[in-house]
Amino acid sequence: MTLIPRSHPRYRSLLTRAALAQKAREGLLAPEGLIAHGRGEAFDYLLGERSPPEAREATRLAVACLLRARCPVLSVNGNVAALASKQVAKVARALPHLRIEVNLFHRTPARAERVAEELRRAGVREVLGVHPTARLRGLPSDRGWVDTRGILRADVVVIPLEDGDRAEALRRAGKFVISIDLNPLSRTTLAAHIPIIDELTRVMNRVPLVVRDLRARPSTQWPRWVPSTAQRLRSRTLQRILERLDELSRAGSTS
Amino acid sequence: MTLIPRSHPRYRSLLTRAALAQKAREGLLAPEGLIAHGRGEAFDYLLGERSPPEAREATRLAVACLLRARCPVLSVNGNVAALASKQVAKVARALPHLRIEVNLFHRTPARAERVAEELRRAGVREVLGVHPTARLRGLPSDRGWVDTRGILRADVVVIPLEDGDRAEALRRAGKFVISIDLNPLSRTTLAAHIPIIDELTRVMNRVPLVVRDLRARPSTQWPRWVPSTAQRLRSRTLQRILERLDELSRAGSTS
Repeated sequence: MTLIPRSHPRYRSLLTRAALAQKAREGLLAPEGLIAHGRGEAFDYLLGERSPPEAREATRLAVACLLRARCPVLSVNGNVAALASKQVAKVARALPHLRIEVNLFHRTPARAERVAEELRRAGVREVLGVHPTARLRGLPSDRGWVDTRGILRADVVVIPLEDGDRAEALRRAGKFVISIDLNPLSRTTLAAHIPIIDELTRVMNRVPLVVRDLRARPSTQWPRWVPSTAQRLRSRTLQRILERLDELSRAGSTS
Repeated sequence: MTLIPRSHPRYRSLLTRAALAQKAREGLLAPEGLIAHGRGEAFDYLLGERSPPEAREATRLAVACLLRARCPVLSVNGNVAALASKQVAKVARALPHLRIEVNLFHRTPARAERVAEELRRAGVREVLGVHPTARLRGLPSDRGWVDTRGILRADVVVIPLEDGDRAEALRRAGKFVISIDLNPLSRTTLAAHIPIIDELTRVMNRVPLVVRDLRARPSTQWPRWVPSTAQRLRSRTLQRILERLDELSRAGSTS
């Protein structure tokens, strides 16, 4: 185990990386999940490893939609469980009608149980999706399974770190889709009604605070989604990344 | 195992991803290597998954330096062995005085032997670095080991997919450093005398062709390195990524 000095400028990112590698060794994450994490890391680096204002705005809008929802579901895969089980438990406590459902791209019964166990250990009371019986249309069998008490009947679905095919299938199935994904150009981000383009734990840590803040106001004051929202959020983040790359390229060229 | 349709626009990238995940399951790659691959994927996506002209120029210049070198060494880690063992063997045949040395960030004797075995199976005759006895200054013990017949006495070192600390230590040790790395802003890219900012297998496939082409000309016509080379190569690639992001952001905003 390599020790990471606290003084390292990217200390948190390196710590997360080491923790994820360990979770993969324990079988919680699929190897493909590690590669996906690396892609996210690259985009977070381009965001400056902090939440841009439009991601905060998107999170606030997402929480308003979750508070208004009839049957909201948060979908959890191996990467989400490895990175943010504690945060999932806190979000579940802050939003008692939000159901938590395990949903794996590389599903095996053992790994579904392993992810559920990780969530329960972190304090999540009810975990759906371990023995799913319904199917989402347009996805191959091992990836299409959903829980009849969860995603099948959900009106709003939160999909952190989701694969593009599933994101699109959920949208086609008439769900209101909230994504959390660092890639501003991924198919998941493009498919979402509200794309939160930000790092998962930063978003999840913010959610309980936003819930408390919105609950303290009349719901007429909560932000409202309009069809142009998604495009506006994506364009602003892309613009921000362009500016940052430009800045980095100037810094690099003088070093 | 998920089947990837040949018609998928990112077929090659997905195939590579599946192959690497498999190699990680077999213990050739460390989990951290998979995360690093993901970061590279994100940058390759921004390059349009093809070699930019400045990467071709850098490769040509690198080959000229290798042909002129007294004792050139190609450093191979788990990711390089998993992605490009066959290409390493072809490059070794094209450049008979180039020595191949195993160099691992997460070194265990078993994994060093595993990487060497992968190279030998692909046709590399001599693999250094399996039982290294010398140390590179400024690196912790498990990462500083080098071979006295290889990197210790090398004048030119090629470091594909290398970690920033090692790249900087090699430069400080007076080596002429040629990097192959998709991240135009990584410390490895910044430390290199010749940064080849491109995907490993594309570069390695090109090397034997360039060797043949240069050998057909008098060496006075081969390209020459000058101190401004590295910065120029980096700036051009960054500019290219900026343009591509701008283009993608326009495309995204109309979809």
